[in-house]
Amino acid sequence: MDRFWQKCARCARTVRFSLNGRCACGGTLLVQYDLERIRAAVRKSALKDRPAAMWRYKELLPIARERSIVTLGEGWTPLLRMKPLERKLGIRYIGVKREEQNPTGSFKSRGFASTISLLKEHGIDYVAVPSNGNAASAMAAYAARAGMRAAAIVPRDCPGIIIEGCLRYGAATYVVDGLIHDASRIIEEGAAEQGWFHAGTLKEPGRVEGKKTMGLELAEQLDWKLPDVIIYPTGGGSGMIGMWKAFQELLELKWIGGKLPRMVSVQEAGCQPLADAMRTGAFVPPAAEEVTSKPTGLRVPNPPDGELVVHIIKQSQGTAIGVTTEQIDEAQKQMGRLGISSSPEGAATLAGLVQLREAGWIRPGESVVLFNTSHADKYVSWTPSAAVPVVRSYSELRQHQQQTGGS
Amino acid sequence: MDRFWQKCARCARTVRFSLNGRCACGGTLLVQYDLERIRAAVRKSALKDRPAAMWRYKELLPIARERSIVTLGEGWTPLLRMKPLERKLGIRYIGVKREEQNPTGSFKSRGFASTISLLKEHGIDYVAVPSNGNAASAMAAYAARAGMRAAAIVPRDCPGIIIEGCLRYGAATYVVDGLIHDASRIIEEGAAEQGWFHAGTLKEPGRVEGKKTMGLELAEQLDWKLPDVIIYPTGGGSGMIGMWKAFQELLELKWIGGKLPRMVSVQEAGCQPLADAMRTGAFVPPAAEEVTSKPTGLRVPNPPDGELVVHIIKQSQGTAIGVTTEQIDEAQKQMGRLGISSSPEGAATLAGLVQLREAGWIRPGESVVLFNTSHADKYVSWTPSAAVPVVRSYSELRQHQQQTGGS
Repeated sequence: MDRFWQKCARCARTVRFSLNGRCACGGTLLVQYDLERIRAAVRKSALKDRPAAMWRYKELLPIARERSIVTLGEGWTPLLRMKPLERKLGIRYIGVKREEQNPTGSFKSRGFASTISLLKEHGIDYVAVPSNGNAASAMAAYAARAGMRAAAIVPRDCPGIIIEGCLRYGAATYVVDGLIHDASRIIEEGAAEQGWFHAGTLKEPGRVEGKKTMGLELAEQLDWKLPDVIIYPTGGGSGMIGMWKAFQELLELKWIGGKLPRMVSVQEAGCQPLADAMRTGAFVPPAAEEVTSKPTGLRVPNPPDGELVVHIIKQSQGTAIGVTTEQIDEAQKQMGRLGISSSPEGAATLAGLVQLREAGWIRPGESVVLFNTSHADKYVSWTPSAAVPVVRSYSELRQHQQQTGGS
Repeated sequence: MDRFWQKCARCARTVRFSLNGRCACGGTLLVQYDLERIRAAVRKSALKDRPAAMWRYKELLPIARERSIVTLGEGWTPLLRMKPLERKLGIRYIGVKREEQNPTGSFKSRGFASTISLLKEHGIDYVAVPSNGNAASAMAAYAARAGMRAAAIVPRDCPGIIIEGCLRYGAATYVVDGLIHDASRIIEEGAAEQGWFHAGTLKEPGRVEGKKTMGLELAEQLDWKLPDVIIYPTGGGSGMIGMWKAFQELLELKWIGGKLPRMVSVQEAGCQPLADAMRTGAFVPPAAEEVTSKPTGLRVPNPPDGELVVHIIKQSQGTAIGVTTEQIDEAQKQMGRLGISSSPEGAATLAGLVQLREAGWIRPGESVVLFNTSHADKYVSWTPSAAVPVVRSYSELRQHQQQTGGS
């Protein structure tokens, strides 16, 4: 029997493992492991002798051979208790998972450590990603580490420091006059001609598995007792899917027991399809002209499997909320005054916590973990030192390549 | 007997522990521990059960009570092997210690975790530091975490992103029309009136001890076998002093044995007092108008105890070299193409490695560790979002305070 395979989260069909993340039915193919066998082979108490990195959970990652692993030193980020916030908000426990301490300065390191390892193992040599920014620079860094070519397509208003990261790591970098799904469309159109492997959210099985390690780590760092509430800044949703999957696996492994956390998605009010879907019961992505939120990882009008994210939130008895730009700015300042370099996305989780505490949805005796997904530094308004081509379509990208003789 | 005390590195005088880092003779007071007792109490093999943070070495840090510890999740940064560089340069082992993954995005987190803990323990409530940047933002973050006031004074050409960090963490922030020693002079002048505790390099014993953990970690991460060569980007030199001190303590603890690494200081050619001192035998700091290097942590014309740094380099059979701005830029690009976000200071260590390998000073069979002290992101040319007062003296700073009613 194979060590891992895939199962559709929608139609439950089981398939042999491949790099494809989409089921014929339109659902998401999630990786499955022989958890009985892992339970017999690994004791959770033995994990402490393993490296302080996400690869301590190697049995729960879909890389067949250890030598395929592409690492830059990701994972096992600090979980920092925030006593001043606990006192201020009247909550028993508040922890911040400091994902900005990953190698590329964001939580995206995890997904691409896993995905690039997988692609390397399967002989892929050119990877492309549509991204609001941090995924693009993480892809570029891990591809560089693997000796793989990379192409990054990000929105025109992507923070300059993040674009600069893509260039530094050597990715062919384009900005698109549009949103993240416009970037994805360009990659879909060009994939065959360019030889791109499309590593967009949920296109392949690696990213969810890498993100899953956030949930595994959280459990281990809290001595296998999960918090009552997890507040997570949600764009494409692979982190929510990954963490929820982690908790299911931990239950099956009997490494945890009891109640799972209520999962909360926070988005910015100008683009909050998840909050809207929770309210109306139907998933209706906003039209591009309705999207008014800032250029952050939260701005994903049409996540590839929003239904699955909503399903998880409901199953966990969680919620999805929108917070305003002003609330995010205020929360970012508050995090700074507590010594934390917080991205707008990370700050949004604090804004969400304040809102849910005021509404009584989070109670005084509960424990809450916020995910600070990236550094504040990345979001200053800065123009990259090199000119980056602006494209509206794949044909414009192709035209640019022909004019410059580049790739 | 006290758990720790201090001893002058120059005159060998032993004194009771205090916050003072300077001996009456002008030498540096270094913290001493009862290593016999620690050796009896702690087995090195037991360290693996401790948190993945610099506080795993708490017995070797001068904080008396655990509740004094101010932490943001610092230390236990990845040591990443660089096989493509090994092949390219023909060297058996090259590792990069990724210090940019510390909470404030630089190695300065370690020194200030230790110093701010110490100051908290001793009841200090207002701390000030002269800095080329990363020390200032680290001080600001840890002071914020401790609920302590902080004042940062940095050169006028300090990278804007780093100044922005100081502001974010809530420090009173000034830029001085001069170099780091001009900032130090202002703090000395204002200390009594403002109530500042001067936490400049080697002014107090905490910073060296915090930096020391880089050496302790390196030993443990390499299974207690130190590399042949350590290349370290050197400004004030407390990292060199700290790591060398770490190795002496590890020898006394019998946690390591055998030969210690040759310690290499890399500086930028436009301000290389250590390289000059190694060549000429005398320590003569360059005059301000002779300093032509970029605004990085390397630009310290007159380190507070340059003699001690030179002594350590010689004792280790190491060397000090200068590399050009162009070599640093080229090395930074090379690091980027290998997936590493490298500050100019970190990149300087690669430039130094290339130079020493070409000169035959590093041989093919040797092992080398480079310290990447900070993220590339911090060094883009960007202006902080808030106006920061420019001062040339303490009286100008005082004038500014009176005009704005601020502090």
